[in-house]
Amino acid sequence: MFESAELGHCVEKREYDREVAKLRAQLLDAQMHVVERAEFPVILLSSGSDGSGKGEIVNLLNEWMDPRHIQVHALRDPTDEERAHPFMYRFWRRLPPKGRTGVFLGSWYTASITGRVYGRVGGGELTRTLAEICRFERMLADEGALIVKLWLHLSKKAQRHRLAKLESKAATAWRVTPQDWKDYRRYDRFRAVTERALRDTSTAEAPWTVIEATDARYRNLTVGRTLLDAMHKRLERGKRPAVLRAAPPPGAPVDARDVIEELDLSLKLSEAKYDKKLHKLQARLHALAYDKRFCDHACVMVFEGNDAAGKGGAVRRVTRALDARIYDVVPIAAPTEEERAQPYLWRFWRHLPRRGRFTIFDRSWYGRVLVERVEGFAAEPAFMRAYREIVDFEESLVRSGIVLVKLWLAISPEEQLKRFHAREKTPFKRFKITADDWRNRKKWDAYQRAVCDMVDRTSTEPAPWHLVEANDKKWARVKVLETVCEAIERVL
Amino acid sequence: MFESAELGHCVEKREYDREVAKLRAQLLDAQMHVVERAEFPVILLSSGSDGSGKGEIVNLLNEWMDPRHIQVHALRDPTDEERAHPFMYRFWRRLPPKGRTGVFLGSWYTASITGRVYGRVGGGELTRTLAEICRFERMLADEGALIVKLWLHLSKKAQRHRLAKLESKAATAWRVTPQDWKDYRRYDRFRAVTERALRDTSTAEAPWTVIEATDARYRNLTVGRTLLDAMHKRLERGKRPAVLRAAPPPGAPVDARDVIEELDLSLKLSEAKYDKKLHKLQARLHALAYDKRFCDHACVMVFEGNDAAGKGGAVRRVTRALDARIYDVVPIAAPTEEERAQPYLWRFWRHLPRRGRFTIFDRSWYGRVLVERVEGFAAEPAFMRAYREIVDFEESLVRSGIVLVKLWLAISPEEQLKRFHAREKTPFKRFKITADDWRNRKKWDAYQRAVCDMVDRTSTEPAPWHLVEANDKKWARVKVLETVCEAIERVL
Repeated sequence: MFESAELGHCVEKREYDREVAKLRAQLLDAQMHVVERAEFPVILLSSGSDGSGKGEIVNLLNEWMDPRHIQVHALRDPTDEERAHPFMYRFWRRLPPKGRTGVFLGSWYTASITGRVYGRVGGGELTRTLAEICRFERMLADEGALIVKLWLHLSKKAQRHRLAKLESKAATAWRVTPQDWKDYRRYDRFRAVTERALRDTSTAEAPWTVIEATDARYRNLTVGRTLLDAMHKRLERGKRPAVLRAAPPPGAPVDARDVIEELDLSLKLSEAKYDKKLHKLQARLHALAYDKRFCDHACVMVFEGNDAAGKGGAVRRVTRALDARIYDVVPIAAPTEEERAQPYLWRFWRHLPRRGRFTIFDRSWYGRVLVERVEGFAAEPAFMRAYREIVDFEESLVRSGIVLVKLWLAISPEEQLKRFHAREKTPFKRFKITADDWRNRKKWDAYQRAVCDMVDRTSTEPAPWHLVEANDKKWARVKVLETVCEAIERVL
Repeated sequence: MFESAELGHCVEKREYDREVAKLRAQLLDAQMHVVERAEFPVILLSSGSDGSGKGEIVNLLNEWMDPRHIQVHALRDPTDEERAHPFMYRFWRRLPPKGRTGVFLGSWYTASITGRVYGRVGGGELTRTLAEICRFERMLADEGALIVKLWLHLSKKAQRHRLAKLESKAATAWRVTPQDWKDYRRYDRFRAVTERALRDTSTAEAPWTVIEATDARYRNLTVGRTLLDAMHKRLERGKRPAVLRAAPPPGAPVDARDVIEELDLSLKLSEAKYDKKLHKLQARLHALAYDKRFCDHACVMVFEGNDAAGKGGAVRRVTRALDARIYDVVPIAAPTEEERAQPYLWRFWRHLPRRGRFTIFDRSWYGRVLVERVEGFAAEPAFMRAYREIVDFEESLVRSGIVLVKLWLAISPEEQLKRFHAREKTPFKRFKITADDWRNRKKWDAYQRAVCDMVDRTSTEPAPWHLVEANDKKWARVKVLETVCEAIERVL
């Protein structure tokens, strides 16, 4: 991986000055096209050996281009807000919107690589993390992002030389920390781990560019050219997707049996039983929320279901068991402008609960494979890849300690019709029934197909779907509360 | 202030049940109108004596209304991200957007009131803070917000009784902390400070409602009714402003002399002098940014000026002196959808720098009194009140340790014309010149009038305007850097 970056590349001053003059104008021009068209974000990772000038080239890019459209993120220790969220939260909150460039000094690679070098991260864990990173970057690329990953390389000798030189001058001595020398002593280990990490994550959509950093002029020029080329190619492609590579969704089963049809929607509870069970379950949930062990966890509930299946009522039965201080209910409607300028999962990341808290999503990221699929808002490749992206997303939540409870509330078409009519008659429920609801109803079969695919493709062991028979509201509410309690109890 | 809240109000169970049934339907109905119309946010402060049930009523409202449109903020200790920003940051970031309800348990009052009780806050400081709060709330109200401030009151006897009762039951004992008893021993002092705070901040636009909290049923019903009445009245008003109370801006001076005309735009620097000065100033700024004492501060620069006055170039001369890791450049264009759902200053609050960092605004909150005034996007009352709101905003930044540098780059109409033509000819500068620029140019006099008013009304001692003669770019850049350095040196 580093062979070509230890050849002693260098550029003479005169050539450098001449080339830089051209390069700057071209970079600025390309950047302006990116800004004006606002079709995709540019994500640039500036990484490399200690002393290789990761920070210097960021300053340079800010000087060569228009700094108003560049956001620089120098990530060191996470803040306490970040530590109370899943690992990737700090990166998601900093993703640049379409049209802008985000430069990351310290990225999603840093923790794994240094962790592996110092033995805090095992080999198996590294493999898993790198595979996850690949899928994360692929998702970004599929959502349109241009990802430019730079690795500034120094040979062992060059690194020693560089650190010593920085230390010798008063103006730059502060840039060399004891940690840098400690890292230097592990140069060979660093090199081996990095080589593997770079190889495993050099994908077609987000390849690494390794740049020899011994000569600053060679380094700067190569960085500039690499970025410029990448921007040009991405601009050329425009809105066309990178690759069309989705197989179409499979057809319906030939015997018309599916997981929804198999539900016994006649299940119900008597008023008396319901009252008793409900109170018991609410007390149980309350106790769980205030269990000391829950402080290391958080809970995300996803409520999906047919229109009028009783999501709102079920949500209220859950929240009644909790203190309003520790939960948020997030209704998902059309994304805002800022949300549309980001990958579709971004709007859910921003609402994830801190440790010790609950977030209840009333509709969720599953819109991608339900309404967006059925209504054609998401093209086939987009919703077909979403299944895997969602599984990755949920896995990262669960791994961070979040209890994820996914509930599908199912009613029959007949029951829905009854409820629609009832809503139209009750004054303060009228707002709950719109023309959309009637339109969706006509597509019942397409929705049911989408629901079954969703269950099959996203019901995982750490984050299974729970199908709730909801023709009887009492039955549904009790089952919802039971499911939530059991899920939390499983982790405590 | 508390006379009517110590009468022993209470409601019988039967009456309560009957009234609550009605109230819930009405509250839900009103909330849905608020949500549907999305014209204003509802900001509800739930405050009061310890043990008065501030949290209980929040749970109740969440149950009576649709919790999907309510955000509850229980604020205790600020997070480290919040501590690195001005005091009001944590409240601004939690303001509900139009159509939603934000409930605050713990508000902008808490720190001053308890601080005063325990002697950490002096009497003069309390007076100042309360006056600031009044202006803050007035700004919110002027921006359309409905503010409902509830104070749940307990007499001394009732409080002792309440705390003891809570402590006696296992299920509620955790709610009574040693701090509560400590506060109780200071009941009289608390009462005196609170009485004054409530009186001073009971304004026409955001009055306090004091509610006797001894009897839970009386308390709940009164809270519900108060909120319902407030929502009804606010809904009735619709988009009409609360009061029309702005005097028109004063006319131009009769002798046509103004602060801009008085500038000597012929000031310039030779190339040689410029190079020398620039490098010296950049080194000086760099040293200041890395001065240890700067860690307790932050720096906000505001760049305003005529179109083509050279803001971008001046910004780049500043950023070149800094490491890209410690600054952000924020270009201000049209607000996004999420920003339009908030008071106009919200979008600037979200970009304020943490301690130790720089934020450079390329155009700023002054758009309100410049382009929005001239183009008529902001009505007269809106921009006339903006002067005062901006002064308050900037004062709170400066008080938190932020160095605020406001720069107006002035060029003559002739110089502007020359630059417009030059831009049209240079390929990678063409994006910099739009039809808007030509349109604005025709309104030169109106803009100049607005600039002079802005300088007169918002140049304060802690945050003065610096007018920069910018017909010569070199002169302007040097003056900008000088001004920034001097401003930082003044606080270190």
